[in-house]
Amino acid sequence: MYTLLTKDPSSQARAGVLHTRRGLIETPIFMPVGTQATVKAVSPDELYTLGASIILGNTYHLHVRPGEGLIKDLGGLHNFMQWNRSILTDSGGFQVFSLARLRKITEEGVHFQNHLDGTPTFISPEVSMQIQHDLGSDIVMAFDECPPYPCSHEAMSTSLERTLRWAKRSRAWWDAQPIGSSQERHPLLFGIVQGGSHDDLRKYSAEALVDIGFDGYAVGGVSVGEPEPEMMQAVDASTPYLPDNKPRYAMGLGTPPQMVEMVARGIDMFDCVLPTRLARNGTAFSEQGTLHLKNAPYARDTRPIEEGCTCPACQKFTRAYIRHLVKAEEILGLRLISLHNLHFYLNVMRRTRQSILDGRFHQFRKDFVSGYATREESFAASS
Amino acid sequence: MYTLLTKDPSSQARAGVLHTRRGLIETPIFMPVGTQATVKAVSPDELYTLGASIILGNTYHLHVRPGEGLIKDLGGLHNFMQWNRSILTDSGGFQVFSLARLRKITEEGVHFQNHLDGTPTFISPEVSMQIQHDLGSDIVMAFDECPPYPCSHEAMSTSLERTLRWAKRSRAWWDAQPIGSSQERHPLLFGIVQGGSHDDLRKYSAEALVDIGFDGYAVGGVSVGEPEPEMMQAVDASTPYLPDNKPRYAMGLGTPPQMVEMVARGIDMFDCVLPTRLARNGTAFSEQGTLHLKNAPYARDTRPIEEGCTCPACQKFTRAYIRHLVKAEEILGLRLISLHNLHFYLNVMRRTRQSILDGRFHQFRKDFVSGYATREESFAASS
Repeated sequence: MYTLLTKDPSSQARAGVLHTRRGLIETPIFMPVGTQATVKAVSPDELYTLGASIILGNTYHLHVRPGEGLIKDLGGLHNFMQWNRSILTDSGGFQVFSLARLRKITEEGVHFQNHLDGTPTFISPEVSMQIQHDLGSDIVMAFDECPPYPCSHEAMSTSLERTLRWAKRSRAWWDAQPIGSSQERHPLLFGIVQGGSHDDLRKYSAEALVDIGFDGYAVGGVSVGEPEPEMMQAVDASTPYLPDNKPRYAMGLGTPPQMVEMVARGIDMFDCVLPTRLARNGTAFSEQGTLHLKNAPYARDTRPIEEGCTCPACQKFTRAYIRHLVKAEEILGLRLISLHNLHFYLNVMRRTRQSILDGRFHQFRKDFVSGYATREESFAASS
Repeated sequence: MYTLLTKDPSSQARAGVLHTRRGLIETPIFMPVGTQATVKAVSPDELYTLGASIILGNTYHLHVRPGEGLIKDLGGLHNFMQWNRSILTDSGGFQVFSLARLRKITEEGVHFQNHLDGTPTFISPEVSMQIQHDLGSDIVMAFDECPPYPCSHEAMSTSLERTLRWAKRSRAWWDAQPIGSSQERHPLLFGIVQGGSHDDLRKYSAEALVDIGFDGYAVGGVSVGEPEPEMMQAVDASTPYLPDNKPRYAMGLGTPPQMVEMVARGIDMFDCVLPTRLARNGTAFSEQGTLHLKNAPYARDTRPIEEGCTCPACQKFTRAYIRHLVKAEEILGLRLISLHNLHFYLNVMRRTRQSILDGRFHQFRKDFVSGYATREESFAASS
């Protein structure tokens, strides 16, 4: 399912191809987040134009509204939202532990009230697999507990053992599904390495998951509020124990330089809400860092968001116009910045991949990470 | 500038072509409203796809933010928002009298504080013409006073006389502009018939404006809260005194059947915020009336908003999906409904025009107006 094409000699970076039942995904890859069956403010046709090959859907949100039963009856998530490339769904675990109310964790699963209307709900590994099955996901995540940061060794260890038992039950649920019952091929199933900031637990978690056997491995419990060095450390403590011939996915992060640094640590897949979330605040990504387009210096700036950028926003519109739209709270403003930011994230990964294939990732990483920090400083100095 | 092609024998309806310095506009025409240099939620490329040939910009809003000076310096409104077809700008009068605070009307003009930050501002006929000139508008409206509804004969008469003096000053401002100074040709200048619900004042206003001489005539002071029969009456009392060889524009209305009825009364041009405003509330237009897509019966409805509709939303997406987006407050939902509603409005006018050219407007009008009322009733009965 995953073909490793090239390994970078200076780091753990790799370029590969991931095969889902829906198509090919060139890795490293960025996956736009489509929480509620839409990538915020962007249409499927626009995502095709941007070259997105896989998006993420959120099991928890879709279960709460409109419900996987409705989506299944209407032909699955792909058909519902008119997206014909791959979809990865998370397990719902992260949202159950960050959004839901009145949580009660048992060995069987988690009882909670949803964040929308308080409806009592129960999600277990089996329920999560059933939801992701009904959605028609191409990459399914095992159901995990995601403890808050920070978490003691003892509490993390207890949680981790349960997450491993849940991972086995997630695996078993799919193994019990007759192949070809509702789809031609099963989706890929990924396990999630937990363990927080405890290196020994990360190693233990990774090895135990590999023993169970998954189509890919995610590093979870990152980007949960920990300092960046701990985030990097969590990955460093996990990837050495993951097999080369399976894709690795760092969940829910990060900034562009963080993604490049994660690639250097052997990560292949990313998802992050920053491109669309920051767009709604008028913040655009660029090679030199972020631009806060609400700021006064852009009022008469006739340059595109980023000179040389090939995204649909930069092909037509000036910073001055987009700033006006953002200030006037016009939807077209956040649409244009969302397009630009998604293009930027997708393109950073395309360039990262090409640099690995070309044997120049070491230089690319150095230039990209050092170049990215420059704008904030110069902007702060000038405004 | 206006070529009358066909007159309907059964009514005052006409089909024609309006020539602006930017291009040809086939009338009757609907003009999407781009208040703040964007038609809400929609991109210029999408407007081209929908076949819009002219949009409206709001002088008051653009003066307040970002200011006509900035827009002029950046190459005019067309360049600023990347719209290369015609733009009509209103005079700012309506907004000064509906949005601004602490108004004081003098013979010279209107002093007020803007609705955004209370900045003291002054707009006179000359200021309004200068703003519209700086924006680079292709059809400019004379500066008028728009009294609230209802308005006594005496008060309306006083206001009307001032509006006529302002209309002369608007005309004089353009006559004093050297041709070719900043644009190759002057924009078209339209006068605005006022007079409220008083037939004699409408007649007086229309005749006085025709004496001054304009490139087109608008009926103003409609859609300001009056009952529909009074709205129709205001047009009926105005159009007989307007010349056949000039376009007529009914400002700020209306529902689809109202537009068709206005065409029957000799109106050629319309602008209305309903298509985009109702979209933000989840309401879609159709041949049988409006659909409130938030309603439960649409939850599993796999039909497009309107069967047979050729708009980009109906070509791909189901009512069920759009309902989900609206319920989840996702921007794509209002984008899709905005596209559909704008298409619907533009298309009603295209069909109206074709029926006039084909000599079957009488039947079209009857079928359209009677057909439009049906859904609300059937929906109310079923929900």
